[in-house]
Amino acid sequence: MMLKASAVALCLAASLSGVSAQTFQRLGTCPDLGCVIPPDQQDFLPGQEFDIRFEVHAPKNGSEAFNDGVPDEAFTATIAKDGEEAKSIADFFKHSEPELETWTFSWFEDLFAEAAKTPSVVNVASKAYRRVALYEPGDYTVTLKYYDGKTTTAKWTVRPLATQKRAKNVIFFIGDGMTTNMITAARLLAHQSVNGRYKSQLAMDDFPVIGHQMTHSIDTFITDSANSASALYSGHKSSVNAMGVYADSSADPQDDPKVETIVEMLYRIWGSAWGAVSTSFIADATPIALSGHSRLRSQYGVLIDQALNGVSNYSWTKTDGPDAYFGGGAEQFLPGSGSFQGKDYYAEFAKKGYSVSLNKTALLAAPNDQKALGIFCRSNLPVWLDRNIFPENLETLKNDPAGGSGPAKDLPGLKEMTVKAVEVLHARGGKKGFFLMSEGASIDKQMHALDYDRALGDLLEMDDAIRATIAKLKELGILDETLIVVSADHGHGFDVFGNSDTQYAAAQEDPRAKRDAIGVYANSGLSQYTQPREGVSYGTGANFPLNWDPRYVIAAGLGANPDHREMFGVGAKPRSPASIGADGEAYASASDRPGGFLVNGTLPTDQTQGVHSLTDVPVYAMGPCQETFGGTYNNIDVFYKMAACLGLGHGKNVTHGGGSQCKSKRAQL
Amino acid sequence: MMLKASAVALCLAASLSGVSAQTFQRLGTCPDLGCVIPPDQQDFLPGQEFDIRFEVHAPKNGSEAFNDGVPDEAFTATIAKDGEEAKSIADFFKHSEPELETWTFSWFEDLFAEAAKTPSVVNVASKAYRRVALYEPGDYTVTLKYYDGKTTTAKWTVRPLATQKRAKNVIFFIGDGMTTNMITAARLLAHQSVNGRYKSQLAMDDFPVIGHQMTHSIDTFITDSANSASALYSGHKSSVNAMGVYADSSADPQDDPKVETIVEMLYRIWGSAWGAVSTSFIADATPIALSGHSRLRSQYGVLIDQALNGVSNYSWTKTDGPDAYFGGGAEQFLPGSGSFQGKDYYAEFAKKGYSVSLNKTALLAAPNDQKALGIFCRSNLPVWLDRNIFPENLETLKNDPAGGSGPAKDLPGLKEMTVKAVEVLHARGGKKGFFLMSEGASIDKQMHALDYDRALGDLLEMDDAIRATIAKLKELGILDETLIVVSADHGHGFDVFGNSDTQYAAAQEDPRAKRDAIGVYANSGLSQYTQPREGVSYGTGANFPLNWDPRYVIAAGLGANPDHREMFGVGAKPRSPASIGADGEAYASASDRPGGFLVNGTLPTDQTQGVHSLTDVPVYAMGPCQETFGGTYNNIDVFYKMAACLGLGHGKNVTHGGGSQCKSKRAQL
Repeated sequence: MMLKASAVALCLAASLSGVSAQTFQRLGTCPDLGCVIPPDQQDFLPGQEFDIRFEVHAPKNGSEAFNDGVPDEAFTATIAKDGEEAKSIADFFKHSEPELETWTFSWFEDLFAEAAKTPSVVNVASKAYRRVALYEPGDYTVTLKYYDGKTTTAKWTVRPLATQKRAKNVIFFIGDGMTTNMITAARLLAHQSVNGRYKSQLAMDDFPVIGHQMTHSIDTFITDSANSASALYSGHKSSVNAMGVYADSSADPQDDPKVETIVEMLYRIWGSAWGAVSTSFIADATPIALSGHSRLRSQYGVLIDQALNGVSNYSWTKTDGPDAYFGGGAEQFLPGSGSFQGKDYYAEFAKKGYSVSLNKTALLAAPNDQKALGIFCRSNLPVWLDRNIFPENLETLKNDPAGGSGPAKDLPGLKEMTVKAVEVLHARGGKKGFFLMSEGASIDKQMHALDYDRALGDLLEMDDAIRATIAKLKELGILDETLIVVSADHGHGFDVFGNSDTQYAAAQEDPRAKRDAIGVYANSGLSQYTQPREGVSYGTGANFPLNWDPRYVIAAGLGANPDHREMFGVGAKPRSPASIGADGEAYASASDRPGGFLVNGTLPTDQTQGVHSLTDVPVYAMGPCQETFGGTYNNIDVFYKMAACLGLGHGKNVTHGGGSQCKSKRAQL
Repeated sequence: MMLKASAVALCLAASLSGVSAQTFQRLGTCPDLGCVIPPDQQDFLPGQEFDIRFEVHAPKNGSEAFNDGVPDEAFTATIAKDGEEAKSIADFFKHSEPELETWTFSWFEDLFAEAAKTPSVVNVASKAYRRVALYEPGDYTVTLKYYDGKTTTAKWTVRPLATQKRAKNVIFFIGDGMTTNMITAARLLAHQSVNGRYKSQLAMDDFPVIGHQMTHSIDTFITDSANSASALYSGHKSSVNAMGVYADSSADPQDDPKVETIVEMLYRIWGSAWGAVSTSFIADATPIALSGHSRLRSQYGVLIDQALNGVSNYSWTKTDGPDAYFGGGAEQFLPGSGSFQGKDYYAEFAKKGYSVSLNKTALLAAPNDQKALGIFCRSNLPVWLDRNIFPENLETLKNDPAGGSGPAKDLPGLKEMTVKAVEVLHARGGKKGFFLMSEGASIDKQMHALDYDRALGDLLEMDDAIRATIAKLKELGILDETLIVVSADHGHGFDVFGNSDTQYAAAQEDPRAKRDAIGVYANSGLSQYTQPREGVSYGTGANFPLNWDPRYVIAAGLGANPDHREMFGVGAKPRSPASIGADGEAYASASDRPGGFLVNGTLPTDQTQGVHSLTDVPVYAMGPCQETFGGTYNNIDVFYKMAACLGLGHGKNVTHGGGSQCKSKRAQL
């Protein structure tokens, strides 16, 4: 599983992008030729385990060429708590002195260099100190000395102790890519308003506390879902495509310096249960980052093995595996090229005592007191709109989770998966409580496809899951001791700006005249999605639109698009707005919204989808510690708030759980 | 000033748009042929004064044609508090029976009808009951009976009493069109982050409580700034272009049923001081809606007269005029076609005891104990970016507030105006306190123009004004007794999605290749706006970018665009993205971003600008009652929260202030 760390590697500019021009970076977080990782300005929970890596860079060519490309192998590093004496890293952490590693990587300094194929090559000398922790709150300074006089320093802050649990359970709903704008649009579609007053609202609307969290990566201002999930779960920002680690410059995606996640700490300290539920494939970034430690989110097989067995190439905190784990992504479970070492992970999970469910009926029948795996399809779960309104789209899929050539059948939705997970986690966590992450994954995936209806359908599904979860917690008598947090990992630049008269648009031949069907301001009118349509009843219950295909549909847009055709209104088929032409460039798909008007894009011409955006995203909180979630803060603070509420900040090494071999030692709350 | 209410009028479809198709509405808020205004589902503060209008419609033609176009003039109406007996409106409110009014209006049922020029004509019979109030909290039912058996009912709710002041002063900052997305982008431009942690932040970021408010109009889901401001100031949503009134169907824009605003109530009940500050012309919707009552926001002259002298065509609450009133818009003050009855409103204000300032020097020197008018230019105040970074753009303007042909000189910014207003209002309000609204108006105006840099510059200016205001309140010793609320009236669908390498884009000739300069995700890199540029120092201080024109600029977009060319980065000249061609249609302006790539629009082809969006907008609160601003609520609730904090909900008619003639009776706090 571990590649040779010293291998010469030509890394992609996309994954390692530069100091000099800030946008293309030699290595994000490394301000000079010496790198301290974790870098300057990082926070830690007391007792949170992590790895440290030092790198000394010697660029052979390019604008930073130095020392003929020979890195200083005699670098030294110290750490000092404010007001105390500096000690060597090995002494301070009582860690043996690690072996020196060396490697080479390359990067492009800007787009001109990339176009000219003139990479800058960097030789590296490095050491890694594995599995250390800081126990005393306060400020620390780490100093790396190299090249006979150069220094790179990093200020680290250990946050206050938090040894008492205020919430027994935490349920964290993540609407992937979900913004306030989308929440507003979903409310408009599903809830009726009369003269400006909503007669019913979203479950989220009843949450008493709102905050805003900043989603930027450690080294770029637009994040992906791996490192943003990792920030939420560990209190440490990372780089695009990375989770549970800070990115180093080596080629091995599994040797980067790790940080302990909330479920690892929760299991280590309290022996609590934990679970993840997602409408994506379960190895996708948001669910897998709870347990995953990798520079590359695409290491799907490795990451599923980590979820079950923990990190295996280094000593690291073990959990006993998730107690409830429901989603798509059979590719990593069926034996074959998608699974780790080609093994059958249904069998691997079963060997460790899991019930394994491959459809909704089995899921609902699975025993609550047994660890539960549920994988319901290959790839992502079909979206709510296709499962409920356009089920004919499911029939042609080849996504049987058992490996057959037909479609997955008898699919659960996010609501059923989440409620079942609560039952299992409550039964298994008992007094020790639990942590559950539940993700509405395709809000993001469908926004990427500019398929607003499918995205908003999945947002409404998550809201419905939140409502059902609150009801289930009440039924179990644990609502008052459960903190519920609803947030997102990043945004897409989406908003609704009016309506479109589908009849008028369809009657126009001139593409420009089709745009005259759009009504803004006074002509935006009222939502018709909440008005019943004669002869149509979806049976989807309250809290969903009565009519997905009214005459007057919302007109909406993203701030960032590939070339595409636009014809507002729900599509019976999922969208594929742009596709790659013969010249390798992305153009509007001929088959997508063929009756629409052409919109040329604002994205690089190799992009076939929309992209993530900068915006702060909302955080909704209800339950114990809710008052700590008001105001504006960083995404890492969501971790520190949840961790403080769960009593995870300890001034000494606490290992009540310690893995399956010592379950009897689980702490009592 | 009052047009004949019974005049036959052909109203625009845009201002009165229909029940049958929901988007085009005969009259918003009127669900059947009988209309109760205020309509169903409206809330009132106890003691808040308002007008009632009933209308009975008889469509002569179209899909709703009824009774040969003869409206029932014998309609009757009653009101009943829940559990009590219904009384006639005249009896209940001890109001004389008003005279019957009749008129005719027309509307289009949909776009096909509009294109075919086939309006539906409606005859109307109506009565209006002026200046009534409900004093007892609870639910009321108003019933209109007409056409011998038809009824239209409206449920009204009077909110709880709130007779005690918890905050002496309220300062309400409105970032016009400002969303969370824009706040995030402004932070990125002005504040430096190191490895994901901001070293400084926005003033807004320090506010402890955040809420989200829904901005939709009473009859459309996209609002304009008039009726959204009105909702914030009065607790009553209205229709696009209306403020301080519910929209009726008559032609007269000044006879629509009114509602009392927060400053009218504050002056009537407590005799407090009030003021408005804006970077727009002061007769623009957001500042003028504090005192304005009109179906049409474009009645600028009338509205300025109302601000000074109150409503003059009906008996209505008088204030003593604003104590501080600073902004642009000399057109309504210079004698001529822009002012009410052609009068000199500088002189009218001076006659009532105002100091009149036409530049910053005069503003700063104006006595704090005297009512103060400051009008610094014609039209809107030039934006922060032009005042501070591109001052050459000011030199060619013809906006002298004294009426000369040259440019306005010695301009204050929002910070100077706001801080001066606080000084004046504190000196004049004294123990009675004050209410100040301060608006960053051109956030909206520049988003309309797709000029992201100018919009974000004005957002940062408002944030700077907030910071300076807090410092001034501290200095005056009144921070703890002042509630500060920062919010917006609506959004624009804006977000940042990456960066653009201006050098690479400029070096490409192919428009598609220019898009390859855009970096997303890992290639978005870090903000260069916070890095000093050699030889450039704007002198704009902390909290603003050090470099507005870096090589790597933000790539951003709006979800709704006219045709335009895009070339990311600050423009030395203000943007004009689209203009009307010879065929009357909007096309990308040839002179705007000529080096950019063409983006065809997603808006009707008569639109030259971006438009407002649906999104909920954030509310930041600090000070007394801050805890009441958490969670999700309607824009009208912002009024009820502020009003409750100011003790404006009284169970009897309270008139301590009562206008300038009885100043000695002002209540003591």
